[in-house]
Amino acid sequence: MEEVYTHRVQYYETDQMGIVHHSNYIRWFEEARVDWMRCHGIGYRQMEESGIITPVLKVMAEYRSMVHFEDLVEIRVFIKKYNGIILELGYEVRDQKIKELRTVGESRHCFLDRDGRPLSLKKASPKTHEVFQNAASMDTFLPTK
Amino acid sequence: MEEVYTHRVQYYETDQMGIVHHSNYIRWFEEARVDWMRCHGIGYRQMEESGIITPVLKVMAEYRSMVHFEDLVEIRVFIKKYNGIILELGYEVRDQKIKELRTVGESRHCFLDRDGRPLSLKKASPKTHEVFQNAASMDTFLPTK
Amino acid sequence: MEEVYTHRVQYYETDQMGIVHHSNYIRWFEEARVDWMRCHGIGYRQMEESGIITPVLKVMAEYRSMVHFEDLVEIRVFIKKYNGIILELGYEVRDQKIKELRTVGESRHCFLDRDGRPLSLKKASPKTHEVFQNAASMDTFLPTK
Amino acid sequence: MEEVYTHRVQYYETDQMGIVHHSNYIRWFEEARVDWMRCHGIGYRQMEESGIITPVLKVMAEYRSMVHFEDLVEIRVFIKKYNGIILELGYEVRDQKIKELRTVGESRHCFLDRDGRPLSLKKASPKTHEVFQNAASMDTFLPTK
Repeated sequence: MEEVYTHRVQYYETDQMGIVHHSNYIRWFEEARVDWMRCHGIGYRQMEESGIITPVLKVMAEYRSMVHFEDLVEIRVFIKKYNGIILELGYEVRDQKIKELRTVGESRHCFLDRDGRPLSLKKASPKTHEVFQNAASMDTFLPTK
Repeated sequence: MEEVYTHRVQYYETDQMGIVHHSNYIRWFEEARVDWMRCHGIGYRQMEESGIITPVLKVMAEYRSMVHFEDLVEIRVFIKKYNGIILELGYEVRDQKIKELRTVGESRHCFLDRDGRPLSLKKASPKTHEVFQNAASMDTFLPTK
Repeated sequence: MEEVYTHRVQYYETDQMGIVHHSNYIRWFEEARVDWMRCHGIGYRQMEESGIITPVLKVMAEYRSMVHFEDLVEIRVFIKKYNGIILELGYEVRDQKIKELRTVGESRHCFLDRDGRPLSLKKASPKTHEVFQNAASMDTFLPTK
Repeated sequence: MEEVYTHRVQYYETDQMGIVHHSNYIRWFEEARVDWMRCHGIGYRQMEESGIITPVLKVMAEYRSMVHFEDLVEIRVFIKKYNGIILELGYEVRDQKIKELRTVGESRHCFLDRDGRPLSLKKASPKTHEVFQNAASMDTFLPTK
């Protein structure tokens, strides 16, 4: 069983090349990441309100084939690495209909308190820690692309 | 004497119609508004840090002619109305080279404290109030468009 | 019976005021407009591919109450005016849960051929014309807010 | 001698974390890339009009320290690799005042004709090829951290 996040391409996401502007995939990764967390019982908004900030340390996207206006894309999120301090996620964007791979990507995150000091999620939010850890152990068994 | 704000059109601001996506003009109005304030000695960032929030109550844009990638546009900001409680600004976007009118617009703002309560700028920041009031009195003499 | 378009607020749509940046509502109007057309059997992409361009002539948004990250909003689209040459749409953005009004807006459009010449939709695409005309006649009976 | 591109951080580029949203750096890389080309006599718009498309194949950004509203940042562009078929650029974003490193990044590009077929820039536009090749040979002498 595996969840995917679906995004419908908007007109304002295209550029004059007639395809989706490459910067938008970075935003879609965020959409899919927050949705993944929601599906796993982690409210990103509540997490932030409870004082845990999750900045992006690094992001990467590799574009394999083009996406156009009105296309539906599916985004799969998986955990590449998690140790309580650092979270690394992977992303696969596929066309919803023909399942062709459009883009792959990665993001790296840490956890900070409101004063910008690094947090161990294991201590700061054991429940969230457990979700990431369980998902991380499962994802290692998946042939990721 | 009159200041204008200059913006260079970016590739990511275009859409597949081959022109600037219409939502970006709303962002350019903000760029020009903050720049206008900066030129008049009002730091928007400091104002916010001092506890005065300036939300947008209304915005309007009317598109007269098209703007393309790499174009330089000039944006003129002028005060349409100011009474210490409500600020109404007007905008004119013109091609920098041929001065043809591209877009006109308006925005309406109020002033709030950190708890979202309306402020009289006259009391909350007399210096900023004076700037807006002086500019408002001058702008009434301009044939605006 | 009435369709509404649902949008989930993304993190990248917020600004440092802690709410949705006002320019994004203009983009949501577009999302809802294209979705409305899709629900009524008008493919915006096919329309463009068939040579009918629908630029925005004017847009307006009036902000009534704040929208936050992860909120679900419902956007209702209705036709304010349609005569085959000019299309004017109205928008209402409400919180999905409590139905409180967040933002109202309007947009005005015309129809152009690939060379930028105005089209009468009645001639250029009778089927699309009929959809707009029928929807326009129905919307006049609705108490629009 | 070295050019840098300067960008003033806009309010609409911030998010509710109170800093610049990470996706915007990808857009700034594009701003700086197009500006770099302009400074070296390569008009991106003309290149596209002459039938040479330059899609992004890969992009990466690594965030070192935070950037805030109204900050001025300097972006240095340098060529990491160029062979006529593939162009790899590097980016350094620094605070304009204190010169502290904010973000580093990379992008990879190829050249396509209007039908999406790969081009050798050496044949398709010898003049542009020469600019990239000269810049590439100079940049190898720079300690690009």
